[in-house]
Amino acid sequence: MNPFTKDPAASVTSLGECALLGRMREWLGAAAPASPAGMGDDCALTEPRANLFTCDSLLYGRHFDDSCPAELAGEKLLKRNLSDIAAMGGLPENALLALFLPPQTSTEWLEGFVRGLARAALRYSTSIVGGDIAESSSPFLAATLSLTGRARRPLLRGGAKAGDVLYVSGPLGCSIKGHHLTFEPRIEQGMYLSYAPGVSACMDLSDGLAKDLPLLCGSSLAGILDMDALPPSAETICECGEDRVAMLRHIMCDGEDYELLFAVDAAMAEELESMWTDRFGAPPFRIGSLAPRDGDGPQLIDAADGKALEYAGYEHLRQA
Amino acid sequence: MNPFTKDPAASVTSLGECALLGRMREWLGAAAPASPAGMGDDCALTEPRANLFTCDSLLYGRHFDDSCPAELAGEKLLKRNLSDIAAMGGLPENALLALFLPPQTSTEWLEGFVRGLARAALRYSTSIVGGDIAESSSPFLAATLSLTGRARRPLLRGGAKAGDVLYVSGPLGCSIKGHHLTFEPRIEQGMYLSYAPGVSACMDLSDGLAKDLPLLCGSSLAGILDMDALPPSAETICECGEDRVAMLRHIMCDGEDYELLFAVDAAMAEELESMWTDRFGAPPFRIGSLAPRDGDGPQLIDAADGKALEYAGYEHLRQA
Repeated sequence: MNPFTKDPAASVTSLGECALLGRMREWLGAAAPASPAGMGDDCALTEPRANLFTCDSLLYGRHFDDSCPAELAGEKLLKRNLSDIAAMGGLPENALLALFLPPQTSTEWLEGFVRGLARAALRYSTSIVGGDIAESSSPFLAATLSLTGRARRPLLRGGAKAGDVLYVSGPLGCSIKGHHLTFEPRIEQGMYLSYAPGVSACMDLSDGLAKDLPLLCGSSLAGILDMDALPPSAETICECGEDRVAMLRHIMCDGEDYELLFAVDAAMAEELESMWTDRFGAPPFRIGSLAPRDGDGPQLIDAADGKALEYAGYEHLRQA
Repeated sequence: MNPFTKDPAASVTSLGECALLGRMREWLGAAAPASPAGMGDDCALTEPRANLFTCDSLLYGRHFDDSCPAELAGEKLLKRNLSDIAAMGGLPENALLALFLPPQTSTEWLEGFVRGLARAALRYSTSIVGGDIAESSSPFLAATLSLTGRARRPLLRGGAKAGDVLYVSGPLGCSIKGHHLTFEPRIEQGMYLSYAPGVSACMDLSDGLAKDLPLLCGSSLAGILDMDALPPSAETICECGEDRVAMLRHIMCDGEDYELLFAVDAAMAEELESMWTDRFGAPPFRIGSLAPRDGDGPQLIDAADGKALEYAGYEHLRQA
């Protein structure tokens, strides 16, 4: 849905700020607790429990466009943040929504966006406790959501060691075909991993395995990938057919998979696979292992021939 | 300083995301704790103490322009949020910085902005624990900062009652002449008020007394203002000279004063004034009192003649 309108009476400015805030409360419904726990004071006054803190943004024309229903854009904004909470093994708590709205933004689009956000918030037990609205100029419609959460046994990126087995929680690639809007953040899987024995590191895949795995490796480890074991998403299979080169490129390089990438002590790997299967109905995807890095050598290595893998993930700031 | 450059080598895209994040850490310096307490994992892992949560944004061309040094823009972003923490009687804890950067953004400008933010963070004991960078298109350069804080005895807006005396912590109006960049958030004053006896409600003045005071009044109270007691800032005096009508308009309507507006039980007002003077060197400004509102009657009343005051504060979403 296109977020803008030429009809002044259908735009957010026809409401004005106070009326708009009232409508926002209505659209947020049960996802927005009453003040002082939610909107209505200088800050939201929350329970002092959260130990996770993250934020992520959404920009019209970059992260969603007119082909995207407003509700799904709102859902996506929250789910991107939830994926970060999942990657720490946490549960979400409270969110703030900061909006940049051009005057031409249609009230109908905004209602859909906020209702979608509220629906996802209720589904994942998150409260929308406040935010901010700034007036921008068309077409700069954007939103930032910041989210607190709670992890009793936080999963960090930094604990992986040589010999650990590498897994991903789901198939990869071609997220742009729809998964980037419809994905489910892996909150339950992250929670499960934070209590499972032998899990040494975890992160979510947002910029592609080729870019994200080196972050899990740090400077002293290399990822040895079993390329035949890399799981293509249904969309990747559809897109690539028999073209294995293209398929691997999509799996390695595409962003917005929002699956978990995690490392497990080799001695515990079989037990974890078996317990994961009991819990989620299918095993996680075992994609390789970690080895000591050879000096400044490659961080991504093909298990079949020991050669460096040359792939690049999603680059946020591209050279003009 | 203009934030954009035509020289690709001087732009943020010439660094790319990873190098840029490295530079951001360097610029943030001591204001950014090491991972997992700060940047570097999926979420920041903080101490579970914060019970305040707020966010505010800054947009190029609206909240700052080329006449503003980059450092002051960075400071302002944090200080706007600190003013909300002050209004709850709290101390700040952790902040996330979400940036929307056009490719032409100059690295020099960004360094100034981030160093200014870090300087203010250190001054107010705030940690910058993470954030997000999204690529936008020129001229949409914007930032959202979200901030957690801690108030042991939170000051709410909602506790004021008829008979309470109204105060502001400093002079008002014409903030645009410079105060909107150079102001000091009233953290110490807010903290003081949260422990002082008789303080019934507090908020910060960001959209002008005329718009903010009705929020403190709620639906059942009216503010009775002693117009002669309203304190003009030096800039307001300078701007208006002998023109009292213009002076009152600036005091009542201008945004971004970032002073505290608070209500005190009448029986405790003299004691509070005396203790405040001992602590801060001068008394707060007593500007009026609260009375029961007459049905749907006016919320702002001139104490001199009992008539309704007709002023409007800053409107964020203006009718096109």
